[in-house]
Amino acid sequence: MRTSFLVSDHTGITVDTLAHSLLSQFPGIEIRRENHSFVSSAAEVDRVVEDIDAAARDGETPLVFCTLVDPALRERVHRSAGICVDVFDSFLPTLERALGVTASSAVGLLHGVGNDQGYQARLEAIDYAMGHDDGTVTRDYDRADVILVGVSRTGKTPTSLYLAMQFGIKAANYPLTEEDFGIEGVPEALHGVKSHLFGLTTDADRLQRIRQQRRPGGTYSSLAQCQHEVREAEALFRRANIPSLNTAGMSIEEIATAVVARVGLRRNWRE
Amino acid sequence: MRTSFLVSDHTGITVDTLAHSLLSQFPGIEIRRENHSFVSSAAEVDRVVEDIDAAARDGETPLVFCTLVDPALRERVHRSAGICVDVFDSFLPTLERALGVTASSAVGLLHGVGNDQGYQARLEAIDYAMGHDDGTVTRDYDRADVILVGVSRTGKTPTSLYLAMQFGIKAANYPLTEEDFGIEGVPEALHGVKSHLFGLTTDADRLQRIRQQRRPGGTYSSLAQCQHEVREAEALFRRANIPSLNTAGMSIEEIATAVVARVGLRRNWRE
Repeated sequence: MRTSFLVSDHTGITVDTLAHSLLSQFPGIEIRRENHSFVSSAAEVDRVVEDIDAAARDGETPLVFCTLVDPALRERVHRSAGICVDVFDSFLPTLERALGVTASSAVGLLHGVGNDQGYQARLEAIDYAMGHDDGTVTRDYDRADVILVGVSRTGKTPTSLYLAMQFGIKAANYPLTEEDFGIEGVPEALHGVKSHLFGLTTDADRLQRIRQQRRPGGTYSSLAQCQHEVREAEALFRRANIPSLNTAGMSIEEIATAVVARVGLRRNWRE
Repeated sequence: MRTSFLVSDHTGITVDTLAHSLLSQFPGIEIRRENHSFVSSAAEVDRVVEDIDAAARDGETPLVFCTLVDPALRERVHRSAGICVDVFDSFLPTLERALGVTASSAVGLLHGVGNDQGYQARLEAIDYAMGHDDGTVTRDYDRADVILVGVSRTGKTPTSLYLAMQFGIKAANYPLTEEDFGIEGVPEALHGVKSHLFGLTTDADRLQRIRQQRRPGGTYSSLAQCQHEVREAEALFRRANIPSLNTAGMSIEEIATAVVARVGLRRNWRE
């Protein structure tokens, strides 16, 4: 099997995201990934290069995805036997010309080193999401940027946490249960915050599969119950005019970014 | 101010990460970011191109970061007046040559569309992190991939959630309090899981700033108390031989990826 080396001088998040994005365009091909994060000295780079060269000798030419900001370190990687996809080499010259300045070549400018403010905003949003998960606390809803509403296992909790973590957005979530169905308007706890509501729904058969994993047997994970809850929840969304999204087959990232786009939310922090 | 347009046919996570990574190399220059996610038709692309051209007429030449997988849509973007940084155009030809196949040009292959297994693994890890946050539940610790240990506000909760969300890693977290200090070995709840422990610590003055934000005044956020707790926690890590990390000035991403690297954890899912 071919190996791809993900080489970064820091967290490796950018190179991981990029490699994943590019390689997902070749779905038929299996490629082993090897992460090398926090690689920041010539000696460390040389050790990775040795691994790359060894992999090249043993099998197919390895791919190397590289986000090293130090040009001297990048050059060492380029001397390896791998095929290089180098973000900074490829794009920094264009940006330098466009912006009329030279790139700083400083490691760790990304991801908020020493940035107290961003850290605080995200912490607060995470605290808020955890404190307002699953309808446990319904006061304080007016502080929410968005309140996700839906039946159990439609993605409310992971989406709230993702919104907090990645965007610093305060998201509460309120689970719809039997007592919320068939009423006029919205459940009492949601009065006064109607403009912040966003509904999550899904397909009954997918809901059943997910519930089955969590609590097998029983009414909770029966198809009939899932069909009933989905039907009632969607009827409530329509009646109360709550915008909603069917999350079936969507990843947490997809749900969260779709909510951001649909509600018109903004990131509350930037490193 | 110059504007950068982030154009993507899907969540926009890749293009956002990449733009952020590249622009962080130009720390002195302020650039407004405009996200255009889920742009998937020619008509939608043309609307974004109009915005780009308008921005170009009104001020400095805009930057355009683009992750559209459809070559025909990319071409439309390239006709705009912006300066393009195009991931797929730049790197797919290299990868096609290396892999000997043509890229699929299919949208949404990334981020696990319809991938139940990955979704479940992350859900489970998130459930686990939330259920084992802050030492509320200490049984079941043997199911944890890692147990983060530290005094209040050293980053345990956000790190646990990030590990769950991004890596599907099950992380519990246990808060060190007065009763854990000065004892022999590790707190009783942690007996039998010592090999899974990882300590988080920070600088006392930073800890104080963060606690002050959360609960101002009082002992909890006094510098003396923070100094005392940090000293005791670090003494415990040394005595019990628990690997640890000083999280001062680190972002959630940095802490989480450092823990992954130090403990030698692996991602438990892949779309």
